[in-house]
Amino acid sequence: MASPISRAKNGPPWRGQLYDILFETDTRGGRAFDVLLMVAILASVLVVMLDSVDTIAASYHNFLYVAELVLTILFTLEYAGRLASVESKRRYALSFFGIIDLMAIIPTYLSLLLPGTHFLASIRVLRVLRVFRVLKLVRYLGEARTLARAMAASRYRIIVFLITVLTMVVILGSFMYLIEGADAGFTSIPVSVYWAVVTLTTVGFGDITPNTPVGQLLAVIIMLLGYGMIAVPTGIVSVEMVYAARVAGRTGTAAPRAAGDMVCTSCRTAEHDPDARFCKTCGGTVIEVMLE
Amino acid sequence: MASPISRAKNGPPWRGQLYDILFETDTRGGRAFDVLLMVAILASVLVVMLDSVDTIAASYHNFLYVAELVLTILFTLEYAGRLASVESKRRYALSFFGIIDLMAIIPTYLSLLLPGTHFLASIRVLRVLRVFRVLKLVRYLGEARTLARAMAASRYRIIVFLITVLTMVVILGSFMYLIEGADAGFTSIPVSVYWAVVTLTTVGFGDITPNTPVGQLLAVIIMLLGYGMIAVPTGIVSVEMVYAARVAGRTGTAAPRAAGDMVCTSCRTAEHDPDARFCKTCGGTVIEVMLE
Amino acid sequence: MASPISRAKNGPPWRGQLYDILFETDTRGGRAFDVLLMVAILASVLVVMLDSVDTIAASYHNFLYVAELVLTILFTLEYAGRLASVESKRRYALSFFGIIDLMAIIPTYLSLLLPGTHFLASIRVLRVLRVFRVLKLVRYLGEARTLARAMAASRYRIIVFLITVLTMVVILGSFMYLIEGADAGFTSIPVSVYWAVVTLTTVGFGDITPNTPVGQLLAVIIMLLGYGMIAVPTGIVSVEMVYAARVAGRTGTAAPRAAGDMVCTSCRTAEHDPDARFCKTCGGTVIEVMLE
Amino acid sequence: MASPISRAKNGPPWRGQLYDILFETDTRGGRAFDVLLMVAILASVLVVMLDSVDTIAASYHNFLYVAELVLTILFTLEYAGRLASVESKRRYALSFFGIIDLMAIIPTYLSLLLPGTHFLASIRVLRVLRVFRVLKLVRYLGEARTLARAMAASRYRIIVFLITVLTMVVILGSFMYLIEGADAGFTSIPVSVYWAVVTLTTVGFGDITPNTPVGQLLAVIIMLLGYGMIAVPTGIVSVEMVYAARVAGRTGTAAPRAAGDMVCTSCRTAEHDPDARFCKTCGGTVIEVMLE
Repeated sequence: MASPISRAKNGPPWRGQLYDILFETDTRGGRAFDVLLMVAILASVLVVMLDSVDTIAASYHNFLYVAELVLTILFTLEYAGRLASVESKRRYALSFFGIIDLMAIIPTYLSLLLPGTHFLASIRVLRVLRVFRVLKLVRYLGEARTLARAMAASRYRIIVFLITVLTMVVILGSFMYLIEGADAGFTSIPVSVYWAVVTLTTVGFGDITPNTPVGQLLAVIIMLLGYGMIAVPTGIVSVEMVYAARVAGRTGTAAPRAAGDMVCTSCRTAEHDPDARFCKTCGGTVIEVMLE
Repeated sequence: MASPISRAKNGPPWRGQLYDILFETDTRGGRAFDVLLMVAILASVLVVMLDSVDTIAASYHNFLYVAELVLTILFTLEYAGRLASVESKRRYALSFFGIIDLMAIIPTYLSLLLPGTHFLASIRVLRVLRVFRVLKLVRYLGEARTLARAMAASRYRIIVFLITVLTMVVILGSFMYLIEGADAGFTSIPVSVYWAVVTLTTVGFGDITPNTPVGQLLAVIIMLLGYGMIAVPTGIVSVEMVYAARVAGRTGTAAPRAAGDMVCTSCRTAEHDPDARFCKTCGGTVIEVMLE
Repeated sequence: MASPISRAKNGPPWRGQLYDILFETDTRGGRAFDVLLMVAILASVLVVMLDSVDTIAASYHNFLYVAELVLTILFTLEYAGRLASVESKRRYALSFFGIIDLMAIIPTYLSLLLPGTHFLASIRVLRVLRVFRVLKLVRYLGEARTLARAMAASRYRIIVFLITVLTMVVILGSFMYLIEGADAGFTSIPVSVYWAVVTLTTVGFGDITPNTPVGQLLAVIIMLLGYGMIAVPTGIVSVEMVYAARVAGRTGTAAPRAAGDMVCTSCRTAEHDPDARFCKTCGGTVIEVMLE
Repeated sequence: MASPISRAKNGPPWRGQLYDILFETDTRGGRAFDVLLMVAILASVLVVMLDSVDTIAASYHNFLYVAELVLTILFTLEYAGRLASVESKRRYALSFFGIIDLMAIIPTYLSLLLPGTHFLASIRVLRVLRVFRVLKLVRYLGEARTLARAMAASRYRIIVFLITVLTMVVILGSFMYLIEGADAGFTSIPVSVYWAVVTLTTVGFGDITPNTPVGQLLAVIIMLLGYGMIAVPTGIVSVEMVYAARVAGRTGTAAPRAAGDMVCTSCRTAEHDPDARFCKTCGGTVIEVMLE
């Protein structure tokens, strides 16, 4: 559970202090930096978004351009500081957030290296990738782990469900292509499969709709399937969450136990030997945690 | 749980009687007043709504105008009565419903103070705010507390989920802006993010839809994500509700225990010492309520 | 749980035999009649539906008209038979299915009594009401009771949820009316409230959509609210169903116990005295059923 | 649980070896074949899908045609191999996947046997049926069984729910036909029922939308019904999944027990006599599995 990125053990004392500010979230400096960083991230995302609006870009493009440049330089300094203060530069650089931190600064620099009217359009492409920076926000909330775990624990069922859904939309989309044809907008099987996903997931854009009675009947079946099948992912996640909540209940930690832990079903204490059958505190039954 | 707004202790006896009618819901006068008030609130909301319909306003504007004025005067008298009958005028005026009570009467008076053709449009704005009055309806139903609690208990998870969703729609919306461009209606990143929300939440207006194969493929991914992710809020709320129902079961109260209560897992009685490990009534295990 | 409509105790023996065929579902004659009746109901609904399709009505109107008349006469004979074979005619006639049985035959006769070109349109209105006959189908499936109970048990929470939703759509619809105005299709507050329901329930027709940035932002909030709030009815019903399944588990009956029953939490037998605390069969804890 | 299709007991040894490759999934040859087969299936589905896109078919039709032919011959050889290696040819040919394997190869051959310009359109129909081949994918994932079981266990409740929904959409669709009429797109009762399904399942295409206030009010009711009723299938499936997870918990198998198994409610071991009341391992209560 502990981050694999650790504080630099050698070197001048400022490295350790920098690490405390940049990586720690429970020191005074670390908290202040986190708040500042979040404001800077949100501001930089806002700048990119506003620059894409034609009416705003017409008046404020230069200001937004400078703001983006300044924020990118600040993020670059931050990235350099992170690299300098960790024990293993490589481990940080290849970690999930190390990659995102880098991806957040690259697009702006790339747009400087590739000038010319011809590349203007592609420059915009690179800039938009900066929204990856937003992903950083998630890092600061410990609760996310519980949600991610419930998702991870049910990954096989989710994959099976996804394959079932994809199989169904391919078959149902193909049938709709045959029944409705190009006149109703079902111009090819891929487009019909796209329509089947739009319908099964109950999104229903309405850009393509069936016109014939048989097509409408098949659409009704797809809609009822989608309306009922939404229960499956919900059931999967609910089971994992009920389980996580039950195990975490007494101990007061939101995170569920790791697989292999011996947890009392009555008092939920977890300090039991691997061969324990009854709780040493309350006499309740001890079970081994099977789901991670 | 008790309302912080208390009955006036001093003054003439009519203050106490007025309090019983205006604030109490279990006296005869209080019940009759509540029914009358609910009818008046619904009628006044209906009047505002009907006056916004051009064809109705053309014929009945004067009647609706008078009705609104009369109802506003009644609500003003009620507000004055509430202020007069409570122990602390300030505490009521700054309470949630004190503010709503005031917001419900202000718009009509403001529309009287600001005459002139130029302000006609803005007057309408002020009047519509009177629908806040509807919020009063919620006050009269005790069951709302259980629902609100289940929501409140899972507020951190809901925030994490919301940040995840917002991060996703910003990234996915930006990609769609690059892939589809202005021709398909994705005129800017904010508009594309709006489209991503429309798609992820399975609303699917269809005012903006992808035209290119790559855009439709990304749309399919967003739709499947939205279809599956709906399980997360459902799982969160279900867990809290199952918990609340379990704790409340035996004692017959719908409201869950407060955190720190010692509740028997078998018979669900809650009168146990903080250090109790077994139920004094049935011998079942006693657990401390961790989730509020 | 037993039907209040009982077999005629006096009179000639054919009355009892007729009752067995018309009302009983576990005799040979009753089962055969039920199958025939269901076919006749489905056929008559199909006839009404097909007659509403212009292209079909142009060719087969006379045939469909005769078929409807014949089926209506058969349903009338059935209704007369039901009246003749029950102990109390009044009790049947005023029962839920007695009213539906009558409503299923009235429209066709009414269309005969009101001839003339002027009434042609209204005749069609009356005929469509015959689809109420479909409701009869539900009667034949015992499982429906479990679903209906889970719904009934959570009726207060559902009402609170509905009031919350209605309050929100009135407020949010009014705001949209002010923000977007008639140009974007938000022609009045009622229409805007209709749009808010379309959006909050994630239906999203797309007949009315926001055009302004502020309107789209508010729409995003409504969509996220609707996407998250769908968890509330789901949580409510899930809790009731988990409870019903738990109580019904061992005894093998799908229907949950009535409130007041004393059920063992271990072996789930229900034959216990009202003051029992431990199960007489297995020694487990006995709880009183609180939720109906 | 074991497949009814068994290894050929007699004949030359290659029959057994072929069986191991074609049917077994835990031998080295079987695993390699499964991966190859899955690639071939996905490729053949892709070929059919791409050939339906006009712009792609214009350039690559001949290549796609040959690829489809080659893949069909490979699938035919596989089908022949499966027939040759099983004990009972008839049992395989009539099994679920035997029929799908055959359906996957028939359309291409049928398009060869029926030449001529007149049949060109229908040939395309036959080819699209090859997407049934995709169904094979499901076979390779054991987790699917748990999901399928949870669905099967709640089949009666799902049927009742479906009948309720169908009854409602017929009635509500008929009312909308009367209220809105052909001007708003409600051209017949079947079309109006289709619209009611689109609305109740929260799909909301927007191809048909109500224009009158009464129609919009009824639409609001249908949308709220659909928004709330989605809780019912979710509740049904969640209950089954919670049950399956509970029973499967300790034993480490994801599949729930068969009905009739005696399972300990504490330690979840299942090796108990049919008349056992207490667990022989931990002393917990033993229950019989009622839901399959």
